[in-house]
Amino acid sequence: MSKTRVELEKEPEVENPILLEGLAGIGHIGRNSVSYLAEHLGAEKLGEIHSHHFPPYTIINDDHTVEVIRNNLYQLERDGKKDLVLLEGNAQASTPEGHYEIAEEVLDFAEEVGVSEIITVGGYGKGEVVEEPDVLAAVSNSDVKERYSEYDLTYDAEVGQIVGASGLILGLGERRGIEGLCLLGETPGFLLSDPKSTERVLQVIENILDEDIDYSDLDSKVEESQEVLKKLKNLSSQQKPDQDSQNQNPDLGYIG
Amino acid sequence: MSKTRVELEKEPEVENPILLEGLAGIGHIGRNSVSYLAEHLGAEKLGEIHSHHFPPYTIINDDHTVEVIRNNLYQLERDGKKDLVLLEGNAQASTPEGHYEIAEEVLDFAEEVGVSEIITVGGYGKGEVVEEPDVLAAVSNSDVKERYSEYDLTYDAEVGQIVGASGLILGLGERRGIEGLCLLGETPGFLLSDPKSTERVLQVIENILDEDIDYSDLDSKVEESQEVLKKLKNLSSQQKPDQDSQNQNPDLGYIG
Amino acid sequence: MSKTRVELEKEPEVENPILLEGLAGIGHIGRNSVSYLAEHLGAEKLGEIHSHHFPPYTIINDDHTVEVIRNNLYQLERDGKKDLVLLEGNAQASTPEGHYEIAEEVLDFAEEVGVSEIITVGGYGKGEVVEEPDVLAAVSNSDVKERYSEYDLTYDAEVGQIVGASGLILGLGERRGIEGLCLLGETPGFLLSDPKSTERVLQVIENILDEDIDYSDLDSKVEESQEVLKKLKNLSSQQKPDQDSQNQNPDLGYIG
Amino acid sequence: MSKTRVELEKEPEVENPILLEGLAGIGHIGRNSVSYLAEHLGAEKLGEIHSHHFPPYTIINDDHTVEVIRNNLYQLERDGKKDLVLLEGNAQASTPEGHYEIAEEVLDFAEEVGVSEIITVGGYGKGEVVEEPDVLAAVSNSDVKERYSEYDLTYDAEVGQIVGASGLILGLGERRGIEGLCLLGETPGFLLSDPKSTERVLQVIENILDEDIDYSDLDSKVEESQEVLKKLKNLSSQQKPDQDSQNQNPDLGYIG
Repeated sequence: MSKTRVELEKEPEVENPILLEGLAGIGHIGRNSVSYLAEHLGAEKLGEIHSHHFPPYTIINDDHTVEVIRNNLYQLERDGKKDLVLLEGNAQASTPEGHYEIAEEVLDFAEEVGVSEIITVGGYGKGEVVEEPDVLAAVSNSDVKERYSEYDLTYDAEVGQIVGASGLILGLGERRGIEGLCLLGETPGFLLSDPKSTERVLQVIENILDEDIDYSDLDSKVEESQEVLKKLKNLSSQQKPDQDSQNQNPDLGYIG
Repeated sequence: MSKTRVELEKEPEVENPILLEGLAGIGHIGRNSVSYLAEHLGAEKLGEIHSHHFPPYTIINDDHTVEVIRNNLYQLERDGKKDLVLLEGNAQASTPEGHYEIAEEVLDFAEEVGVSEIITVGGYGKGEVVEEPDVLAAVSNSDVKERYSEYDLTYDAEVGQIVGASGLILGLGERRGIEGLCLLGETPGFLLSDPKSTERVLQVIENILDEDIDYSDLDSKVEESQEVLKKLKNLSSQQKPDQDSQNQNPDLGYIG
Repeated sequence: MSKTRVELEKEPEVENPILLEGLAGIGHIGRNSVSYLAEHLGAEKLGEIHSHHFPPYTIINDDHTVEVIRNNLYQLERDGKKDLVLLEGNAQASTPEGHYEIAEEVLDFAEEVGVSEIITVGGYGKGEVVEEPDVLAAVSNSDVKERYSEYDLTYDAEVGQIVGASGLILGLGERRGIEGLCLLGETPGFLLSDPKSTERVLQVIENILDEDIDYSDLDSKVEESQEVLKKLKNLSSQQKPDQDSQNQNPDLGYIG
Repeated sequence: MSKTRVELEKEPEVENPILLEGLAGIGHIGRNSVSYLAEHLGAEKLGEIHSHHFPPYTIINDDHTVEVIRNNLYQLERDGKKDLVLLEGNAQASTPEGHYEIAEEVLDFAEEVGVSEIITVGGYGKGEVVEEPDVLAAVSNSDVKERYSEYDLTYDAEVGQIVGASGLILGLGERRGIEGLCLLGETPGFLLSDPKSTERVLQVIENILDEDIDYSDLDSKVEESQEVLKKLKNLSSQQKPDQDSQNQNPDLGYIG
């Protein structure tokens, strides 16, 4: 059995779609943006990605059912606009090797469904309070930069690297001939989630995808996701394989 | 040679058994409960699980014989009640990937012997002294919750995740179509073992399995297991591959 | 798909070349020396090495294009002198096992193109300011020491080990019958890059290779590489797989 | 290419030998004992064990030649006494999985040459100064204890576990039907090497093997090995893959 598997529950019906990726990360901006989009554009679930490279945690949902760590795939057919494939999820790989393996599996899938373009979404931790968060961009190559020149993207020399999936999927995708860009919402870096930065990122994506997104329940959605994040946050930084389940913040007395 | 192997010394004779899992973990509640059950219900040893993913330690028993880290499998045929398969052991995997691999191997075995239901047992670290430890539950799905509604289980929003085997076996089991529940005994988290919480968990299991358990020597059994635990405790948190054998607590002058 | 791949964009045309290796490392001396040589001797790019064992980071270049971590291979045909193959890059493996795997892949490639001799280049961290950095040498065997006796190499009992690629490629190469030497430029160890030590190392290589190198833009080249290094430096010491992109030095407000 | 390989330079000629193992470890007692024995009994080198699981370091010998990390195998034919196979080396695996893999490879080799008995040697860190170091023993099973009852071995409840090769080779060997014992020399644990404890261990081995060992140059041999150990000591506890070669103790100004 392979250690990373894309498991589809439905045959993809998209044509030359854009792949939109947003996974757990700094300020949870990537994940919150893409999962909000998946829900508000009415995307259809395609399947899940499971991997032995995810952290060995199981989330207990609010209805007390357990759920292993996974990433989720959605599709959206759009008349007169490019179809979409969306990838979102509450964790990334727990080892360097796992990061590469999962990114390659995502790209294998992308090639199979004929993905023509990649947009990865993440956060950029400023290390300080950000009043007016910009959306910083990085691209596969200069052609992409040209092509997206009409969208008010900020390019900032300050950003030097991307860690994990958003960078690898874009960079390894380029090597397979799939171009794209990465959007990083500025965020303090110490916030578990950041609705303001997430909304800015969504506005940019809205423009690029030519969609009209309703932001009315973004705040409550972001807060909801924050609850799950809290459950995992401390765990991911310091692995405790010897434990079953631990209250991560005994002083608060309430975690999840 | 595979890196994780289930080695049977006996052909299983159970029919559609319940799998009861309890491995080393917080407060050692899972392991102590299930190994106590195995002994007191007179379960028969089926075999062992060995893995390159266990910590690279060897335990020196009280009779000075050495024993590699392993997990143990038992079976119990029960007239008029569901048969049992029990899994207990003094360690879990030492890497994320190892956790997944071992859980999948356990589930392969579970499928082979026709396991119809899973009960995993662990501890939930409160981070403070617990006067009256509850037994918190999580389930594969809402049907299971319904089915176990007659047993006085506590569902608590506080518990957000399960780390390691108890969560993965339940969560990955659900994906193979085997339902079940996880029982977590509340415990301070800083105790090596916790007889009170272990007894509470055993009472819940007793009800579910319709058994009548004699608790008279639970305390001494828990204490015994604590000795083994002490031998491994410090080691597992900080690996020291450069060492042969080290007194983990020089101040005490006595460890194992 | 193998986890480490040498991907050639051009058929090598060198004969019995010397392999010159310089990768990211202490004071960035190895990498800066060899990449400076590749450029100033007009070496031709042969291809790249990609590996799942590299850190899971993506560099954002100054033109805002992304680039996955990779090592680069060059060739240089030289009339009347030994041809060269050069290996330089901005990262080494992120795990022990990865170090060995990549070194073996490099040596597989070296054997394929008939490499007759290996020179690996690195830094030696003194832990204090170094006024007049020496170039310390280590060799595959005593024959090599003899052969290079005409070049003013310093052998110092102080240097006890080499970490990573420069040592493994030399040591594992010897086991395949390819001899060579390692040149380590003395450097404080706390500098991101060190033009003075890099120049000393280049002077030694210049002598050995019988080349005449123009050092006029070494300083600016070293500075340029330092920018990339800054982007990766903090990241490599402490992995943060849960993040997208983080300002590594919020106080400075400027990183890359 | 397998990640761990036993490479023989000579066909073994021993019959039902005893395997004597002593690798780098606490107080370097195992390695020093067995390498002293190999030299003083005139054992013949059989080959080496190489592994991707060793730390990615290369040792620079006093003659400035480099040497990859390896373990060494020797044989000794003895008239009227059991033949010997000796395993010694300056490092153990750098990961849990590597520990298991190397131990299994050693045992594969042991089975091939018909090893009839295993003696592993290590140190036991007391955490305090030890005036009269005992040699503590652990055994595969109670038969072994019985068989060795004539040799004045100390069994101490204090020793709870063995970390790494000495324990795994004994414990996994027992599972293949090869019995044996482990000898642990008491040592403070904070010494790089410990001639007094090493001598005590050698005296016990001398008795068991019915040999007469000359201890006259043990001190100088132990000191010599300590030099190599110093080169590796700090490195092994904290990996620095980004470095080439670093003075581990800048204050001393002299390392290797």
